[in-house]
Amino acid sequence: MHLHALRAGVIGTGFIGPVHIEALKRLGVQVTAICGSTKSASATAGKWGIPEVYGDYDYRAMLASPNVDVIHITSPNKVHVEQSLAALAVGKHVVCEKPLGMTSKETAKVVAAVKKRGSPVFAVNYMCRFFPAVLQMRAMVQRGDLGQIIHVQGHFFQDWLLKETDYNWRLLASEGGKLRAVGDIGTHWIDAVSFILSARVESVFAHLETFHKTRLRPKGEVKTFAKVGPKTMVPYKVDTEDFGSLLLKFGRAKHGHADGVHANASISQVAAGWKCSLYIGIYGTKGGVRWDLQQPNEIIVGRRDEPNQILQRGTAGFSEDVAGFTDYPGGHPEGFPDSHKMHYRAVYEHIASGRKTPVLFASAEDGHHEVKLCEAVLKSSETRKRVSV
Amino acid sequence: MHLHALRAGVIGTGFIGPVHIEALKRLGVQVTAICGSTKSASATAGKWGIPEVYGDYDYRAMLASPNVDVIHITSPNKVHVEQSLAALAVGKHVVCEKPLGMTSKETAKVVAAVKKRGSPVFAVNYMCRFFPAVLQMRAMVQRGDLGQIIHVQGHFFQDWLLKETDYNWRLLASEGGKLRAVGDIGTHWIDAVSFILSARVESVFAHLETFHKTRLRPKGEVKTFAKVGPKTMVPYKVDTEDFGSLLLKFGRAKHGHADGVHANASISQVAAGWKCSLYIGIYGTKGGVRWDLQQPNEIIVGRRDEPNQILQRGTAGFSEDVAGFTDYPGGHPEGFPDSHKMHYRAVYEHIASGRKTPVLFASAEDGHHEVKLCEAVLKSSETRKRVSV
Amino acid sequence: MHLHALRAGVIGTGFIGPVHIEALKRLGVQVTAICGSTKSASATAGKWGIPEVYGDYDYRAMLASPNVDVIHITSPNKVHVEQSLAALAVGKHVVCEKPLGMTSKETAKVVAAVKKRGSPVFAVNYMCRFFPAVLQMRAMVQRGDLGQIIHVQGHFFQDWLLKETDYNWRLLASEGGKLRAVGDIGTHWIDAVSFILSARVESVFAHLETFHKTRLRPKGEVKTFAKVGPKTMVPYKVDTEDFGSLLLKFGRAKHGHADGVHANASISQVAAGWKCSLYIGIYGTKGGVRWDLQQPNEIIVGRRDEPNQILQRGTAGFSEDVAGFTDYPGGHPEGFPDSHKMHYRAVYEHIASGRKTPVLFASAEDGHHEVKLCEAVLKSSETRKRVSV
Amino acid sequence: MHLHALRAGVIGTGFIGPVHIEALKRLGVQVTAICGSTKSASATAGKWGIPEVYGDYDYRAMLASPNVDVIHITSPNKVHVEQSLAALAVGKHVVCEKPLGMTSKETAKVVAAVKKRGSPVFAVNYMCRFFPAVLQMRAMVQRGDLGQIIHVQGHFFQDWLLKETDYNWRLLASEGGKLRAVGDIGTHWIDAVSFILSARVESVFAHLETFHKTRLRPKGEVKTFAKVGPKTMVPYKVDTEDFGSLLLKFGRAKHGHADGVHANASISQVAAGWKCSLYIGIYGTKGGVRWDLQQPNEIIVGRRDEPNQILQRGTAGFSEDVAGFTDYPGGHPEGFPDSHKMHYRAVYEHIASGRKTPVLFASAEDGHHEVKLCEAVLKSSETRKRVSV
Repeated sequence: MHLHALRAGVIGTGFIGPVHIEALKRLGVQVTAICGSTKSASATAGKWGIPEVYGDYDYRAMLASPNVDVIHITSPNKVHVEQSLAALAVGKHVVCEKPLGMTSKETAKVVAAVKKRGSPVFAVNYMCRFFPAVLQMRAMVQRGDLGQIIHVQGHFFQDWLLKETDYNWRLLASEGGKLRAVGDIGTHWIDAVSFILSARVESVFAHLETFHKTRLRPKGEVKTFAKVGPKTMVPYKVDTEDFGSLLLKFGRAKHGHADGVHANASISQVAAGWKCSLYIGIYGTKGGVRWDLQQPNEIIVGRRDEPNQILQRGTAGFSEDVAGFTDYPGGHPEGFPDSHKMHYRAVYEHIASGRKTPVLFASAEDGHHEVKLCEAVLKSSETRKRVSV
Repeated sequence: MHLHALRAGVIGTGFIGPVHIEALKRLGVQVTAICGSTKSASATAGKWGIPEVYGDYDYRAMLASPNVDVIHITSPNKVHVEQSLAALAVGKHVVCEKPLGMTSKETAKVVAAVKKRGSPVFAVNYMCRFFPAVLQMRAMVQRGDLGQIIHVQGHFFQDWLLKETDYNWRLLASEGGKLRAVGDIGTHWIDAVSFILSARVESVFAHLETFHKTRLRPKGEVKTFAKVGPKTMVPYKVDTEDFGSLLLKFGRAKHGHADGVHANASISQVAAGWKCSLYIGIYGTKGGVRWDLQQPNEIIVGRRDEPNQILQRGTAGFSEDVAGFTDYPGGHPEGFPDSHKMHYRAVYEHIASGRKTPVLFASAEDGHHEVKLCEAVLKSSETRKRVSV
Repeated sequence: MHLHALRAGVIGTGFIGPVHIEALKRLGVQVTAICGSTKSASATAGKWGIPEVYGDYDYRAMLASPNVDVIHITSPNKVHVEQSLAALAVGKHVVCEKPLGMTSKETAKVVAAVKKRGSPVFAVNYMCRFFPAVLQMRAMVQRGDLGQIIHVQGHFFQDWLLKETDYNWRLLASEGGKLRAVGDIGTHWIDAVSFILSARVESVFAHLETFHKTRLRPKGEVKTFAKVGPKTMVPYKVDTEDFGSLLLKFGRAKHGHADGVHANASISQVAAGWKCSLYIGIYGTKGGVRWDLQQPNEIIVGRRDEPNQILQRGTAGFSEDVAGFTDYPGGHPEGFPDSHKMHYRAVYEHIASGRKTPVLFASAEDGHHEVKLCEAVLKSSETRKRVSV
Repeated sequence: MHLHALRAGVIGTGFIGPVHIEALKRLGVQVTAICGSTKSASATAGKWGIPEVYGDYDYRAMLASPNVDVIHITSPNKVHVEQSLAALAVGKHVVCEKPLGMTSKETAKVVAAVKKRGSPVFAVNYMCRFFPAVLQMRAMVQRGDLGQIIHVQGHFFQDWLLKETDYNWRLLASEGGKLRAVGDIGTHWIDAVSFILSARVESVFAHLETFHKTRLRPKGEVKTFAKVGPKTMVPYKVDTEDFGSLLLKFGRAKHGHADGVHANASISQVAAGWKCSLYIGIYGTKGGVRWDLQQPNEIIVGRRDEPNQILQRGTAGFSEDVAGFTDYPGGHPEGFPDSHKMHYRAVYEHIASGRKTPVLFASAEDGHHEVKLCEAVLKSSETRKRVSV
């Protein structure tokens, strides 16, 4: 079956919704429905020629359409679970933005729904897995190229919330969840490392800090990454962290090359100069490998008794393992939008194949685990003790 | 007018045709027709749901379709002019792959056709202009940020034709033209610098070398960037260059910040280790700026009496000037496919606006000038003298 | 007083002793005495024309020489305190290699000896302070260029002890101390950050791991950084760590720009591919700054609302603050040996000036604090709790 | 014989003289005499404890001293030949700063003097040969690691003469010679490439430009790299070039891996942002290698069918070939001063061994060839034709 035979409906028209649409269009998937505010949904539909428009945030109407096979949920975090459950209930496949939900209690329901016999395909949008570099690192670990993994180190650093006047709904626990830096970007880091190691986090020691205890916000709504003038600002108390140091212990991987690996991650949304640096270093007894999202097309392989190597996507040493997840030849850089494309390709091919392709994308269970992990991070920060997930 | 109101037809289904299609889909443009071999055109149509399929390379049938507004010519170099003229004759807008043609004699015809009153919009696909970094460097030069430009230096290095068994139709003068390295990739470098300076090349001194005088090729057809085994190879004489050193003199820019600039470019398709490195350094009396396609999201601004700067796309100093040519926020890398998207957006918005937007894309005249330049390069190499364009 | 008027005697002829000698010779300081094994001391004396040779490790004889003003202690860690006390007792100035001693109980004695009225000048060789980049970062913090410091992140990664057959005396707690990776290189990281912030570590949470619980060693003595064949290896139990994650809390700096700063450091001697990467990132409310010893001549200054900068030693923004600590012009790289030279210059100029220059070098108290810190690290690792220093 | 047995006398006390002294002291060589202005020579002697001081530029008195074996000539270019001949005449070994002289007519005399039976050892200070990276690249070419060399590309970029008010004696043809950018720094590039290839330049095509036809200079003397205020400036006509593009053809190397190699070099002292970037890329049929003086401790090896490699000085792949030319372990950066040290070590060990070590340093003939080359560059620039050397 061609991917063109599949039809997507997208809930949400903010920053990330159009990212989904664009990626789906590249794949040849039909985007047949859009849901959001009446005004914004219409504008989005006009731009891409999407035939069915569901205004007034009426996602249930969209779920009823016979012309939609897969639902993309890019709405606020608070409604992810509700919308996921509704979509599953009517037999639609789902690609849900992360986090899967606000509490593990509610995300457990999604896991349960997905476990039912004959349930549709469900993916959480941890799309960093689909950077070819991440897939390549995973393949190297799996094959034992790096020996036994001994430690992992890295960071996810941004600076878009550096100033007290920087505002976004994520700053409010009521909107984005109690964990912000760790919840919003830290989970990408953890999910990527978990994917690379093929092992889940078992316990965590976390140190969180909120540098701006009070911030200023404009009146009214604000889009993600939009800049806002300080004219009509009002102060508010910040109940989410700016920064976190995480010491994680990962469990055992089936392939046997990782067992009890310690990882150290620094997560910050106030690290001046870094725009979106997701950096991962994986160290094993035979070699290491490191990657930064800021230079997504290359990884450095570190060795002790032979020279370090620069692996460039699409060239020797970095093409065989990722052949299905990159479209452009070596030296022709791919980027952030391409990771979305590759993620959705993996999901849609899984559907098109009748679930015959391997499940590389994050499952509901993975999404649920990340939410549990965030709860453990909070608890560790409060108790100052290591906490099991 | 929404871009979705415009309809594209694509001639060619090789490496670059699908790059066009994907970019058009991202923009919301309708891709309504595809032309190529019957088998390949059908497959491409199936993948993206393109309604009209023109097999047997019957592009004239496609030109007759009432459902196509813009023709994308991604066929072999030899037929670019013929197809361009035919498309213009029936009033279709055209995006033609570079080079515009094989000789300046024939490309002059396209220039003439485009000059006619009421002619359609015509663009040559020098899409490197639409990397935000290139647009940013152009804006800096135009504004005088770098002072008076004094010299330019750079390279375009690849290694995909390093070995005598590497084969592609471009190696044959009869297929790709007499100039290969300079013609295929060198012209991208020259066009980009010309665009940045807002000035055209006036004269050139060129030194060309062909390291593999004889190469081995497989029997039958071969796709660009495909790897071929050395099993059934046959030797052939190579009549195109592997490498060129170019010393160029650029003319006067209207903005007055560049006049008679000397540029030194090294062009090679046999530079081991470089996959697709288009590197440009622009040096002025007040500052310099440098960029490499391998790290497309940043440029380095060099200063004498203050620190050098790293400008990152989408962030301070590198967002205001390129706002219309980048969609993803700072730190979210864009790449090669995005440059195509931005090029076609500029062309289609120009059409949609009734030619009211500025013409940043390469015109037929620009394409014609590049072909004349290639002829001057060849002549200089043969006569060992500087040659005017 | 010229530095040439001062005369040094060096105890130790291993890897680091000659590093001292070379640096002293560059400064014009007279190296008048050398002490070590009879054979090795003679060889060292011959090479550099050192007039007084004290064999048989007879450092007390050297201390009695009237031709020595400053004693450089580069002998095994175990005898640092004993030799320091002896040198101070006879009124010699001392430059002692780190660590100052094996336990804080014994290093407290050195602190006490130095506190005595009229005591000689005493420095511990935390020479990383004297990389111009480190001095520059300190100046920027002090001046408030980065605003209020909010977090620090970094690593010290090496791979020379990656394999179980890699051997050095530091692997033995009895020789190098109970802490190895953190003690040997981690303390350099901590001291440098402490120096940059002008604040001391108050508490630490540490996670340590020993990957090779058993290693193999050759029979007989082995020099640092020397490679040894696996021929006649014998197994031994390893009682020192390969790796540590440290979460530190720094105290208040007098200048007011740092107070309670959290720092996260990963320390490893088994990180394949890294040879000697001491990396520090300092993040404040107005900007960040980062540096890696592997590229010692430049630092990156990160900003939110203006471009990041590359400060190059000896050029604008990175020369005024460090004028006395660099000798070569911008673009002429300095390296590891130069940091020793600059350290000793600071010490000798302090002596020559009659203690009138500022004490930038690490004092006995600083050295003592590092030993206490190491004890806290061990305790934290054992108790799995944060421990005050 | 220990190097300490050899005694050096240095003529010149400007920027580069002390660089020699410091390097000699590191090696254990005795610096027994200094010659310059009376004031400056005394100051230099005081700093390093140099026993014999020859003021009033009286180098002939120094040549008469029985306590000097090797003369280092770091005086103005104009007197290099005169002093070299005088030193050779009295049987002293010589290390002469580059250029060897002002014209090939006069440098031919030095070549003749050195050719005499029993003449002393003579070296020209092209010390870039002694960066371990350069030696490593040479070894790789010699061994055929890169296959047959096909082209070379690079630059030597500085910006210290960017502004019309920047002044140094090198700007005056009467002081530094008619070629400035090419003569002062371009010759380092050419000599290094020649050394790497083991082949000499046979012909050159050169394009030179002088952007500041008139500059402003202060009254009185000015030190190299010193900054001068624009207060009391006087205009003067500039008769030396700011910039040059060089297309070189190298001859045949005995080892057979290079024959007729084309090289393209851009040389500029007005390239804003570059402080002292000597960059060389060597491309062969099997691989490429590239290096920049700004990151002197690593080279990148480029391959087509396997990953590129980062060779780090002192580690696998970059230690065996250069064992005698580096003192610090991998990861401990060396720099510009170390290249001087290694150069003089090679010269002094050659002397100490009775000329038994290989002559890697630049000979009088090499120095003479560089001067002839500069003359060919000038002639090519004037005639706009390729000129044989």
